Amino acid sequence: MKKTYDSDINLTMLTDFYELTMANGYFKNGFEDTIGYFDMFYRNIPDKAGFVIMAGVEQVVDYLNNLKFTEDDIEYLRKRNFSEEFLDYLRNFKFQCDVWAIPEGTPIFPGEVIVKVRGPIIQAQFLETMILLIINHQSLIATKANRIVRAANGRTVMEFGSRRAQSAQAAILGARAAYIGGCVGTACTIDGRDYGIPALGTMAHSWVQLFDTEIDAFRAYAREYPDSCTLLVDTYNVLKSGIPNAIKVFNEEVVPRGFRPKGIRIDSGDITYLSKKARKMLDEAGFEDCQIVASNSLDEYIIRDMLLQGAKVDSFGVGERLITSSSHPVLDGVYKLTAIEKDGKLIPKIKISENVTKITTPCAKNVYRLYDKETGKAEADLLTLQDEVIDENEPYVLFDPNYTWKQKKITNFTARPLLEKIFENGECIYEKKDVKEIQKYCKEQIDTLWDECLRFEHPHKYYVDLSQKLYDEKYRLLKEHSSKL
Amino acid sequence: MKKTYDSDINLTMLTDFYELTMANGYFKNGFEDTIGYFDMFYRNIPDKAGFVIMAGVEQVVDYLNNLKFTEDDIEYLRKRNFSEEFLDYLRNFKFQCDVWAIPEGTPIFPGEVIVKVRGPIIQAQFLETMILLIINHQSLIATKANRIVRAANGRTVMEFGSRRAQSAQAAILGARAAYIGGCVGTACTIDGRDYGIPALGTMAHSWVQLFDTEIDAFRAYAREYPDSCTLLVDTYNVLKSGIPNAIKVFNEEVVPRGFRPKGIRIDSGDITYLSKKARKMLDEAGFEDCQIVASNSLDEYIIRDMLLQGAKVDSFGVGERLITSSSHPVLDGVYKLTAIEKDGKLIPKIKISENVTKITTPCAKNVYRLYDKETGKAEADLLTLQDEVIDENEPYVLFDPNYTWKQKKITNFTARPLLEKIFENGECIYEKKDVKEIQKYCKEQIDTLWDECLRFEHPHKYYVDLSQKLYDEKYRLLKEHSSKL
Repeated sequence: MKKTYDSDINLTMLTDFYELTMANGYFKNGFEDTIGYFDMFYRNIPDKAGFVIMAGVEQVVDYLNNLKFTEDDIEYLRKRNFSEEFLDYLRNFKFQCDVWAIPEGTPIFPGEVIVKVRGPIIQAQFLETMILLIINHQSLIATKANRIVRAANGRTVMEFGSRRAQSAQAAILGARAAYIGGCVGTACTIDGRDYGIPALGTMAHSWVQLFDTEIDAFRAYAREYPDSCTLLVDTYNVLKSGIPNAIKVFNEEVVPRGFRPKGIRIDSGDITYLSKKARKMLDEAGFEDCQIVASNSLDEYIIRDMLLQGAKVDSFGVGERLITSSSHPVLDGVYKLTAIEKDGKLIPKIKISENVTKITTPCAKNVYRLYDKETGKAEADLLTLQDEVIDENEPYVLFDPNYTWKQKKITNFTARPLLEKIFENGECIYEKKDVKEIQKYCKEQIDTLWDECLRFEHPHKYYVDLSQKLYDEKYRLLKEHSSKL
Repeated sequence: MKKTYDSDINLTMLTDFYELTMANGYFKNGFEDTIGYFDMFYRNIPDKAGFVIMAGVEQVVDYLNNLKFTEDDIEYLRKRNFSEEFLDYLRNFKFQCDVWAIPEGTPIFPGEVIVKVRGPIIQAQFLETMILLIINHQSLIATKANRIVRAANGRTVMEFGSRRAQSAQAAILGARAAYIGGCVGTACTIDGRDYGIPALGTMAHSWVQLFDTEIDAFRAYAREYPDSCTLLVDTYNVLKSGIPNAIKVFNEEVVPRGFRPKGIRIDSGDITYLSKKARKMLDEAGFEDCQIVASNSLDEYIIRDMLLQGAKVDSFGVGERLITSSSHPVLDGVYKLTAIEKDGKLIPKIKISENVTKITTPCAKNVYRLYDKETGKAEADLLTLQDEVIDENEPYVLFDPNYTWKQKKITNFTARPLLEKIFENGECIYEKKDVKEIQKYCKEQIDTLWDECLRFEHPHKYYVDLSQKLYDEKYRLLKEHSSKL
């Protein structure tokens, strides 16, 4: 599969400047070879939804494969007063970390490790900005797209948002993420070329305006594309002009050539009302199979309400509110030090905070998803110490890490480790996946969630619990720190 | 000045697929040489504010300079069933348009032309997706940054949002736009290298966590950076641990070497409360000149409220809410056909809509800003036919295009044409500007607006009027179309 334009770009210098001041500080303070562990996790689900969909792992891999300080970078940093020793270190930078990530398309939940990095602390720290940027962005868009696709309830959803995306790359990678989340295609042509995502589109209002009359514009289009004729019917007036002209042209230019009309598109006005009228007009003309496509500032809430009111729409083109996740345009993933290795032993690290929600869970960890063997449904995720083993043949007692008396014993389950290794000692061991496979996997994984998790509003809160050993370590460190104050 | 990583990337295929189906349709219907005029304008000001700041012209120039269909593109389009004649046209595509844009940093208002394109209709149409994408994004972020900078009321604002940006390019170009809007710098290192924007940063919590104790971490940092020592004081407890340790280290490691401490940073908790306590502790220790930096999900509303409550903050680091303009993450710019040339004459084109706000203003146009000669203040913007001349020596009667009885006669004014030509017959005539100059120009231009336009909420609506001739043309076309229905 061909790569997209950004897969071989060196983004090493896209880093918060403090990663460099810290790197230099670690270097000068003898931490050059100290091994550190970092976790990426997120805290809040956008739109108060039930889950987020992991996306962006492929772009993290591209980023890591291109990590290298160029002479231009060194020159800039020299002007910023970094020492020659440190600049030499950067010049000879060779990536040596182990990296794990939850596969793209997996539903992920607050507080659990979604990317884990182990390596020389200068390096592992340095990755913070870009790992967060990539995963935060693409997971956000995949999640939003999936909400919209679920609202459409079996009707198709197309991603139409390039012109309102927050940069060219946001359009390209956003369309990719939207496809993972379940969109059937995109208007963004470059995603067709580079990812094999269906890229589709027909005409803008300017096509209709260019011709002397609307019907001339429709005729010219139908003659050129009789096999895939979708006409935009709202340039002048949908019911009085657009649809009557479309029907006329379907009869004159499409049917006689042995084709059926593909559709009409409505991009303004009250689409619920117009679509019902349009359906009736098309049906009466014998075009029951002609699809009605709707666009114009749609999102999951509007689509849900349109369908509740009986809108006759077969396909939705969704733009700005998808490509920016406009109702909640940020996923709040963070990247925190969890442990270091010292004299062959793991020393757990914690960050305390006045905001209790900002306290981190220490220790090098694993994360498991526990599935009920009978129903196949996901029951809970479990964070454990990295060397803990879960015995699937014994009952396992889960407990709420905030209200520990809330317990649940589960039996007859499988425990699936969610993190997959993508880099080993700096070498990429990730095999790129076709985005169609990721989309398919995503749908299968969402099917393992209980319906209660899928509600748009007030969903059931999925359990993300700590093993007893991890819980004990966290509270030991919390007590240790508060006793010092 | 060095270019950023994206200035020589070919983004020709980042286009809505319908631009290609239309291009092919124009080609097949004999419109290959028809000259069309397109306007970009926007409809709504984000955050219900008084104005938007234009940004992104430099990236539009980069895009246009790199327009070219590669053999890979042709190959993809061949699979999409475009004819060989059309593919040959694309292969030999030579950009021939005239392009005008309002300069970056200029306040712009709804409904006025901000980018204008004249050229062969296939080409002029084709630019739609990328012109909109670039200008919508960067203008959005420049505008948001400027609101935040004005809320800070003379205190400095740093852009800290890379990790939450919607793609790498959104981080890089967003930081550039934020600088245009008045931020003093960014954490995004690549913007330091490529645009000369001050890139700054000190330490993350992980630096503090790595050391056995907080004071060890502070000591190591202060020894390395005694001349620019800003310490992050909220890893464990701001008042009981962070600030006392910071003061101790300033006295031990900074002052004895002949430096003054630079600052402390607070990233969690109630920053208003903590900053007042911190100020008192630092002052009592003799560090009245030590700055207090605040970060943690800030925006213009929170900053305004913090300052109203007497927060002692000298500098704000603003992340996700700036880099995504999270309270309003979309600028709704559109790109519409306004006229074609036929037999040497201009034929105006209009788009009617059921939504009255979606009706376009036809005709090839100019846009002027009228300044009062005495006060230097901007009084109104005026859209005219392209060949109209405004006589500054005569009084000019402005009128509201919706309520035409609302009139205002202005005298003693200068009329500044806002659009500058950036491409002539396909050749770039734009000279790149230093982003520092754009920032300065932006500030000067905002100073020409009345205070009433600058309010965060319920600002005065700046006048954007039509000349009598343009108004007459618009209403003639509207009547003509409605009489046909």
